[in-house]
Amino acid sequence: MNSPKIAIVGATGAVGRVFLQLIEERAFPTSAIRLCASESSWGKKLSVNDTALVVEEVTTKVLRDVDIVFIAAGSEVSRRIAPIAIDHKALVIDKSSAFRMDEKVPLVVPEVNGDDLENHNGLIASPNCSTIPLVMVLKPLNNVIPIKRVVVDTYQSVSGAGSGAMVELREQTENVLTGKPTTSQIHPHQMAFNVLPHIEEFHSNGYTNEEMKMIHETRKILHEPELSVSATCVRVPVMIGHSEAAHIEFKEPADTDYVRDILSRAPGIKLLDDPSANVYPMPIEAAGNDEVLVGRIRQDESHHKGVAMWIAGDNLRKGAALNAIQIAEEIVSMDLFSDR
Amino acid sequence: MNSPKIAIVGATGAVGRVFLQLIEERAFPTSAIRLCASESSWGKKLSVNDTALVVEEVTTKVLRDVDIVFIAAGSEVSRRIAPIAIDHKALVIDKSSAFRMDEKVPLVVPEVNGDDLENHNGLIASPNCSTIPLVMVLKPLNNVIPIKRVVVDTYQSVSGAGSGAMVELREQTENVLTGKPTTSQIHPHQMAFNVLPHIEEFHSNGYTNEEMKMIHETRKILHEPELSVSATCVRVPVMIGHSEAAHIEFKEPADTDYVRDILSRAPGIKLLDDPSANVYPMPIEAAGNDEVLVGRIRQDESHHKGVAMWIAGDNLRKGAALNAIQIAEEIVSMDLFSDR
Repeated sequence: MNSPKIAIVGATGAVGRVFLQLIEERAFPTSAIRLCASESSWGKKLSVNDTALVVEEVTTKVLRDVDIVFIAAGSEVSRRIAPIAIDHKALVIDKSSAFRMDEKVPLVVPEVNGDDLENHNGLIASPNCSTIPLVMVLKPLNNVIPIKRVVVDTYQSVSGAGSGAMVELREQTENVLTGKPTTSQIHPHQMAFNVLPHIEEFHSNGYTNEEMKMIHETRKILHEPELSVSATCVRVPVMIGHSEAAHIEFKEPADTDYVRDILSRAPGIKLLDDPSANVYPMPIEAAGNDEVLVGRIRQDESHHKGVAMWIAGDNLRKGAALNAIQIAEEIVSMDLFSDR
Repeated sequence: MNSPKIAIVGATGAVGRVFLQLIEERAFPTSAIRLCASESSWGKKLSVNDTALVVEEVTTKVLRDVDIVFIAAGSEVSRRIAPIAIDHKALVIDKSSAFRMDEKVPLVVPEVNGDDLENHNGLIASPNCSTIPLVMVLKPLNNVIPIKRVVVDTYQSVSGAGSGAMVELREQTENVLTGKPTTSQIHPHQMAFNVLPHIEEFHSNGYTNEEMKMIHETRKILHEPELSVSATCVRVPVMIGHSEAAHIEFKEPADTDYVRDILSRAPGIKLLDDPSANVYPMPIEAAGNDEVLVGRIRQDESHHKGVAMWIAGDNLRKGAALNAIQIAEEIVSMDLFSDR
C-alpha cells in the first residue's frame, strides 16, 4: 500500500494543525485525507495540499474507510476510537498516553526503536513530547557507552497543554503587563511570568504523571527496564519548544568529545554546541525545527562517569506530529499494514 | 555599636531598592544612611524611613564616615571600593562575587554558617542568589543525614541580571505580543517566551560562571570541600524569584517524611508541599517573601538514597539584600565590628 487513506482525529488542535503542515511539507503519500474533531469544529474547513477539507465527526464509517488513523485528541478519545478503528482493520497511530505502556503496543520513535514497529497489533503509540527528545539523545549514547542513571529537569512550553494553553498564556501576559488581574482555567496557577512544577496530576509517590511517563516510557523505548531515571517536569512561559537539562551517568567514564561525536552522527539530532559564540539550544530555535537540538555538553562536575547537556525540541513536531508521521512513513515503506 | 552608620553602594539598582525597603520593614538600627550609585543617579532622591536621601558619589569621605558599607554594584565596583572602606575601618558586606572564594573572606548565610562571621577581616561576602536557597535547604539536612551529591537545575528570574534586564523582558514581551521585532542588549538572546541556558560567561569546562559559583560557594558555605555538586543554570522569563529542581543523594537512605520534618523546623524555610491541593513553591509566590519555599519533596526514583525537591526564593530578598542585612544584624548583635 503506497498511498494510504488517512484520518486525523483532533485535526483542529495544536498537534493536529502541525500534522497538516507536515503532510504538505513532507509530501506524505496519501490518496485521501479525512479530518475529524469535536463537535464544535464540525463543518469548519481546513486547507491541505491546496484542497479545502471539511472537519467532520469521527464515525465508524470514517474509521472503516481509511487505512491509517492518527489520534491526537487526548486519552479518552483514543480509548473510545482506537478499538473501533482496529476492528475495521485501520492502523492506529496514537499520540495519547492511553496505550503507551500496554505490552502489546509498540511505543516508537523511529530513529530509536523503529524495529519495534514490526510487532504491532494494529496500534502504535507515539511517546510523550518530553520523552522523545530525551530518548533520541540517550539511545545512540547507550548503544556504545551503557547508561546507568539519568536525571532530567524539563522546561516545557505551554503548547504541550494544547492550543488553549497558548491563548491563556498570551492573555495572562497581556493582563500582567497592563496591570489587570489574571485568571487561570487551563493552567493550575498563573503561567505568565511564572514557572509551574506541575504537569498533569500527581501520583502517590509525589511525582506527576508527566514525570512518571518520562521514566516509564524511556525504559520501554530503550528496552532498558532497569534504567534509573528521575525527572522534574516544569511548565515555563514559552509558547512552543520543550527544553531539558539532562545529567547522564554512564557505567564507565565517557569523554565529552566522544559523546559529542556520537551525537553529531545520530539521526534527527543537530548539535548546537559552541557556548563561546552563544550557540546552544533554545526553545525559540527549536520551534519549527524538525531536529532535536543538543548542546552544552560537558563533563558532569559531580560525577566522574557523568556528562551533562542541554536539549531542546519542538514539542508539536518531533515531540508529537512529526514522530507520528514518521511512524506512518515507516509503516508505508516497510508495508507493515494490518491485513486488510 | 548598636546603631551603625551605613552606606549602600548601588542604592538605585534592583538589589539596592530592596535593601532600602528592608531597612524600613525590619527597622534596621542605623543612625545615618548614605546612598551611593553611579554618576547617572547622583542627585536623585530616594525616600528611606520617610526621609528623602540624596544619591551621591562613593567617595573616600563617605566610606570613612560610615561603619558598614553594603556593596551591590558588581564585582568591579567591589574590587575598587572595598579595600578603601576596609582601610578606613568600615565593615564591608559585599554582594558581588569579587571576594567570595577568598580564603580570608567569610561567605555567609546567617542561618547556615553565621559562626563564620567571627573570623572576618573587615569584609564579609554574601553568596550568589542561586546558591543561598540551595544551602538553606542542604545545611539542615546535611547536619543529620550526610549528603554525597547534589544535582540542581535552576529556573532563574531576570532580576538576577539587574533592573535593566527586567525592563528588557517587559519590552521584548510587549514587542512579541504585538508582532514587532525584539532586540537584546542585556540578555544574550531574546528572553521573552524563551529560556536561556546561559548566565554569565562560559568557563573552559563548559560550565557557566554562575554554575561554577553554585558549586564552589555551596562547598565553602557548608564546609564540605569534597561535596559533589553539578548545576545547570537557566534564565527563564520571570521577573522576580529563582526556582531550583534539586536532586540530593545522601550517604544513607533518607525517608522523605524525615526530610520534610527536618526542613519544617529549619530557619528561614517554609514548606509548601501539598501537591494534591496544587500547593508547591512558585516564583510568583516567592517574590516578596523572605522565606525560602520548599516543596515537591519525594523519593528520587533514580536512586535509593536520593530525594528530589523543588525550591523557590526571592532572589532580591533572601538571595541578595535580605541576606546582606541579616549579616549586618548579626554583626551588630554580636558586636563583631572591626576595631574602629
